[in-house]
Formats: sequence, structure tokens, C-alpha cells
Amino acid sequence: MAGSPGAGRERERAALADALAVSRSALGVSTPNPPVGAVVLDAAGAIVGRGATEAAGGRHAEVVALDEAGPRARGGTLVVTLEPCSHHGRTGPCTTRAIKDGIARVVYAVPDPTPDAAGGAETLRRAGVEAVLVDDDETAAARSGPLKAWLHRQSRGRPFVTWKYAASLDGRVAAADGSSMWITGPEARRHAHALRQEMDVVVVGSGTLRADDPALTARLDDGTPAPRQPLRAVMGLTAVPPDARVRGTDGRFRHLATRDPGAALDMLGDVQHVLIEGGPHLAGAFLAAGLVDEVDAYLAPLVLGDGLPAVAGAGVTTLLEAHRFTVLESRTLGLDVHLRMTTDRHTAASPAAQTEGPR
Amino acid sequence: MAGSPGAGRERERAALADALAVSRSALGVSTPNPPVGAVVLDAAGAIVGRGATEAAGGRHAEVVALDEAGPRARGGTLVVTLEPCSHHGRTGPCTTRAIKDGIARVVYAVPDPTPDAAGGAETLRRAGVEAVLVDDDETAAARSGPLKAWLHRQSRGRPFVTWKYAASLDGRVAAADGSSMWITGPEARRHAHALRQEMDVVVVGSGTLRADDPALTARLDDGTPAPRQPLRAVMGLTAVPPDARVRGTDGRFRHLATRDPGAALDMLGDVQHVLIEGGPHLAGAFLAAGLVDEVDAYLAPLVLGDGLPAVAGAGVTTLLEAHRFTVLESRTLGLDVHLRMTTDRHTAASPAAQTEGPR
Ligand SMILES: NC(=O)c1ccc[n+]([C@@H]2O[C@H](COP(=O)([O-])OP(=O)(O)OC[C@H]3O[C@@H](n4cnc5c(N)ncnc54)[C@H](OP(=O)(O)O)[C@@H]3O)[C@@H](O)[C@H]2O)c1
Ligand SMILES: NC(=O)c1ccc[n+]([C@@H]2O[C@H](COP(=O)([O-])OP(=O)(O)OC[C@H]3O[C@@H](n4cnc5c(N)ncnc54)[C@H](OP(=O)(O)O)[C@@H]3O)[C@@H](O)[C@H]2O)c1
Repeated sequence: MAGSPGAGRERERAALADALAVSRSALGVSTPNPPVGAVVLDAAGAIVGRGATEAAGGRHAEVVALDEAGPRARGGTLVVTLEPCSHHGRTGPCTTRAIKDGIARVVYAVPDPTPDAAGGAETLRRAGVEAVLVDDDETAAARSGPLKAWLHRQSRGRPFVTWKYAASLDGRVAAADGSSMWITGPEARRHAHALRQEMDVVVVGSGTLRADDPALTARLDDGTPAPRQPLRAVMGLTAVPPDARVRGTDGRFRHLATRDPGAALDMLGDVQHVLIEGGPHLAGAFLAAGLVDEVDAYLAPLVLGDGLPAVAGAGVTTLLEAHRFTVLESRTLGLDVHLRMTTDRHTAASPAAQTEGPR
Repeated sequence: MAGSPGAGRERERAALADALAVSRSALGVSTPNPPVGAVVLDAAGAIVGRGATEAAGGRHAEVVALDEAGPRARGGTLVVTLEPCSHHGRTGPCTTRAIKDGIARVVYAVPDPTPDAAGGAETLRRAGVEAVLVDDDETAAARSGPLKAWLHRQSRGRPFVTWKYAASLDGRVAAADGSSMWITGPEARRHAHALRQEMDVVVVGSGTLRADDPALTARLDDGTPAPRQPLRAVMGLTAVPPDARVRGTDGRFRHLATRDPGAALDMLGDVQHVLIEGGPHLAGAFLAAGLVDEVDAYLAPLVLGDGLPAVAGAGVTTLLEAHRFTVLESRTLGLDVHLRMTTDRHTAASPAAQTEGPR
């Protein structure tokens, strides 16, 4: 690598941030594979390849990036968000490919925790390739960002569940007469549609189906469908009408005919990230079952006073039993406020920065 | 003034920020006078006096600062958050005093809008004193900060009303069994006690009195009373028991025996800033009457699912009738989120900075 070791480190770190950004395009697409990003630097440190995990059966990120780099990869560095696999999957191990292409050094942000894929770094080292785990900001960003849901699935054996809702300041999701369009503004709605694009599955309860007949597709600003679409699911015992919009025409619809949140997740198989979009009873059921990992709350700065509460049947009688979260992000989104919260005490170790005391 | 004109301007601007900070100590104290801050710079630009408006009947800020400066004020600059008064109040006009003390230049952030006090700058100029209105960040800070409530009273003829509440994410102020201590954490409670100190009056409804028997005093971290205490008021037709804690022993208690928010404010007389601390029905009544100017919401990141709603009887049936606010500030306060919102479209011209779009 050209220049001082310091400059090389800086370049690798920038490439890792780049790989992380690229990997977002694999969210909701790569399942069951991890949404990985990779960048290839040539021997002089220039970027010569970039890639993200393709849809199941497609290429891994490393292979996409190495394909783009071609012979320029020789003597270069492969920068990747997750330790390259060394098992024979559908596409052959990435380590074999890196060795064959003459990669001299591999830099990765997160070790692979799966038993059959792990050991990639070891395999590389045995073949004389330097393999370095960069444990810094990028590691944390990968763990809490694109790789979050996949890592959760590996360690917990079930998908990562995000509960999303939009409510008034006083916790109402509809006014007394049932009107609810729109409580939040266009920026919050756009954000919620972008969130859908990163999901494997979006779930609503029978009640929401009945009330709103939602399409549940991820849509762009102009109302057209986004390129990435999650599976659409309705949960509850009531049959889903044949003309329900949620059925769509792409075959990506599932009826989860159960009221048990755990059973519903099982029915979905090897998915990574599930978005619970309500309504109140479904949200309450997932909270009561301890099956919410993250909350995206869009709060509109308005008071309704009466109307439909955001959560029902959450199983809380007294304050000590409240479902508690830690705020990870708090910001304005248009005229609304967006809060992202976690229920995981571990990843919540460094919550949003505290601010000054009382005036 | 010593140095370049640029350096002098900078010094005056810093002195104005200083005067603004000093003026906060007059909040909840100076009524019916405006909570003003003043700084005296000597001819060389050094700070030689500082002051804030004293309690009614006491000295105005300018006089406090000039008293401290003594003969060093001669040829100097008086920097003050509000245009000095030229009317004969209980303490004699500030302009006369500034002229007598040989002040060469007066810099102020906000023109005095009251008919009988206005013309202070004109009076100064006629006496050969330079009088300059600095219309910049400090003006905006003074208008939206310490002088906000007083200016509101001058222009609208009624006090500025802040509604404060603490609730769960789903808008509950108590769990199903009535438990509510504490929904928010110590930082939010400390902030709320600091807020009380800046008020003229703190009001709760009969229902809150009955449920909580609150003391309604502003308290310091160790639980002892703060130096500045607002008037404590209970609103509603029910008699206030003789042993209610809110009565205290300092004579600073009022029973507002009405259910009409406008009439209650009238009963309070010439106060500047009123804090409505709930409960739900009182908040709903002030919202329905259009008598809430600002909202301080402390949101705890937890879900109760059932329990007492934050607002009742707000008179909203459909979404279009919702009481809408503009978020001025959104930040974490300990583990909680604090939102400060306004109902005034005018001061809301520049709401909290918008952030990036969807991921
Ligand atoms: N603002 C928002 O964020 C938002 C989002 C979604 C919905 N909403 C509003 O919510 C309202 C609908 O409320 P909702 O509570 O009826 O909707 P819901 O939670 O979507 O549906 C409730 C139904 O889900 C089924 N279900 C499945 N598992 C359940 C469980 N463990 N416990 C209870 N029920 C379970 C039941 O139907 P079966 O009898 O079929 O089992 C139940 O009747 C609509 O007005 C809609 O507009 C608002
Ligand atoms: N978390 C918080 O921020 C917070 C703050 C305060 C209270 N709380 C909780 O709120 C609960 C009490 O709820 P609440 O609604 O009964 O309390 P409230 O709003 O304090 O009191 C309601 C009473 O106020 C009187 N009132 C005066 N003007 C009124 C009007 N225009 N409309 C209706 N009533 C008017 C009525 O009593 P009369 O019959 O005497 O006229 C009415 O019964 C308690 O559990 C308390 O802990 C929570």
C-alpha cells in the first residue's frame, strides 16, 4: 500500500465506512444471507471494486467487489463489513476467491459468529493473507446498523422485531371519529416508507386490515412502488378477504392465522427483520410477549384528547410493569418528532447524549 | 470606547448576552415589571456593573447596575435587554438616572412597547446620549426568552400560559392502578422544578389536588424549597381542604373557584407567566379555550397500554380539529425526552432544524 501506514489505515477506515453504506442496499434483500458490503483497494490504495450481498442464491458482497476489480485486486486489500465466510455455501467460500485473486490483506469490522461460516480469517492467514479485525467506530456502526438484525437472528434464533407507530402527543392513533389521515406529516411518512424497504416482512393485525385495507407496500415519494418490497403479512384468526389490497399480485403476501406472536415469527421462517406496524392490539401483544426489540415512534405535535390509544392489551397494571425502552435517537422530522428506541440493555449502553441540566 | 469600533461592538454584544443571562434571575420575581438585565461598561469597555429587575417596588435593572458602577459609569455604556423606561414609576425613570450618571451610550435589544414607558431612547437622544437598538440574535433571544411572557402580556392583555405534563410514550399520566410516581426520571423532574421557579403562578385542578395533595413548591435537588417560589393555585369549584399541602404557610396560595380558564387568568391579576400543571381535565379545558401558548412535554420512553390519559375534554372530535403545536426544542433529558412546543405561528417561524431525509 502506498504512503505512510497512517494514511493506509485512514484509507481502509474510509473504505469500511463506504462498504457499510453500500451494504444498506442489501437490507431486506439478502436474507437469509447477511447484508454485507465490500470494497477492494488496489496495491496503491485506490478503490477498484465495490459490492453488496445479492438476493438469496446470488453473489456475496466480496465476490461482487472482486468481480468488479478483476486483476487489479492482485496485491490489494479487501475491506468488508463482516468476516468473509470459509464454508461452501451456494456460491463457494469468499476466502477461496480472495486467495485466488491474490488479495494481500483483508480488513473486516465484525467477526462471523456462525459456526459453519466462522474461521474465515484463520483460513486466510493459513494462506498467507493478512486478516485484520478493525475494532472501532465502524464495528459499532456495523453492529448497530446494517448487520443488527442478522446478528440478532444468529444469537437469539429469532428475527429482530421493530414496532413502528405514528401517534399524537397524547398517544392517539386516530381521533374520536376514527380519522387518522394524516396524523404525521410527509417527512415522517416518507421515513416510514424508507423503513419498509429495509424489512423482510411488514405485519399488521386483522383490525388494521379491516379498518384501513392497507397496501403495505413500500412506496416512493410519487406513490409508485419502491424497488425493494418486503413480504406483507396479516396476523389474526379472521380470514383475509380475497379482494384485500394487501394480497397484491406479486405473491409476496402471507396470512399468519394465529394470535401468538412467537408462533407468527416462527411461521415466517428464516427472516431477519420484521416490522410490526400495528394496530394497537398487535403492538400490545408483541410488547406483552417481550418480542419487541426496537421502536420507531413518529410523534405529531398535536393533541386529540380522545380517540384510539396507540397500544391496547399490553399487560401492564402498575407502573413497575411498564415496557421500558432506551432512546437511541431523538430528532425532528419535518414538523414531527422521531424517536428510535431499543429494549436491549446491552446495545443501549451509550444512549443519546445527555444535555444540559435545568435552566 | 477603547480599541476599534469592531471590538467595541463585540464587547457590547457579549455584554448583552451577559445581561440576558442575568435577567433570568428576575423571572417570577419582577412582576408586574419586566424581567430585565443590565450591564454597565466603563469608558474603556470593562464591565463595572450588572443587575436584574428586583421584586415589585424594588429597583429596575439599570439602577442596580448603575448603583454598582458608581462614578465609573461616567462616559461609559449601559447595555440593557429592554429599552430603558422614561416614565415616572415607583422608582423614577431609568433614563434620568443614566443621564445623571454621565452614561454616553445606551445599547438595548428590545424596544419598549408600552405607551407610558416608551420613548426612553428618544429621551436619551434629546439629552445627547447615543441610544442604539441592536437588532440581532440577542433581540430574538430576549423576545423568545426572558422577555417572552412580559411582551405577551403587553400585546395580548393576558398572561403567557405554559402547559407542562409528564407522560408515557402512549400518552398516559398514570398506570391502570393509578401509580404514577415516577413516570419520568430525576433529570426531567429537576427540570420541571427549575421551570416552576421562573413562574408567577402554578395551577392544578381540583382532581389533582384530590389525587396527589401536591405541595406545588419549586424544590432544589435535596428537596428543600428553592429561593424563588411561584404563587400556588387550585382551580375548580370544590373547596380546598384546610389541611391541603398546597396551602403552605407563606400566604402564597389562591383558590380559583371557577371552571372558566379565561376567568381564572383574570382572577390572577397582572401576572406574566402561568404554568398549568394538569391534570388531564384542566389541560383539556385550557386547550379547548385556546389559552395554551407553550407546551413543555416530558415523555418517558415507556408504554403503559392502559391508565389515565394525559388530556381529557379537549373538545376534539376529528383530526382537523386537533390542537396543533410547533416543536421549538426536542432533546433527551436523562433517559426521557423533553419537547418544548409553541402554539404561536409567529414565533414558530423557525422551528427546530430539520434533519436528513429517509435512510
Ligand atoms: N397510527 C398507527 O401507527 C396505526 C397503525 C396501525 C393501525 N392503526 C389503527 O388501528 C386501528 C385498528 O385497531 P386494532 O387494535 O383493531 O388493530 P390490530 O391490532 O391491527 O388488530 C387487532 C386484531 O388482530 C388480531 N390479533 C392477532 N394477534 C392478536 C393478539 N395477540 N391479541 C389481540 N389481537 C390479535 C385480532 O383479530 P382476529 O380476531 O382476526 O384474531 C384482533 O382483533 C385502526 O383504526 C387503524 O387505523 C394505527
Ligand atoms: N403526569 C402529570 O403530568 C400529571 C399532572 C397532574 C395530574 N396528574 C394526574 O391526574 C389525575 C387527576 O385527573 P383530573 O382530570 O381529575 O385532574 P384535574 O384536571 O386536575 O382536575 C379536574 C377537576 O378540575 C376542576 N376543573 C376546573 N376547571 C375545569 C374545567 N374547565 N373542566 C373540567 N374540570 C375543571 C373540576 O373540579 P371541580 O368539580 O372542583 O370544579 C374537575 O373535576 C391524578 O391521578 C394526577 O396524578 C398527572
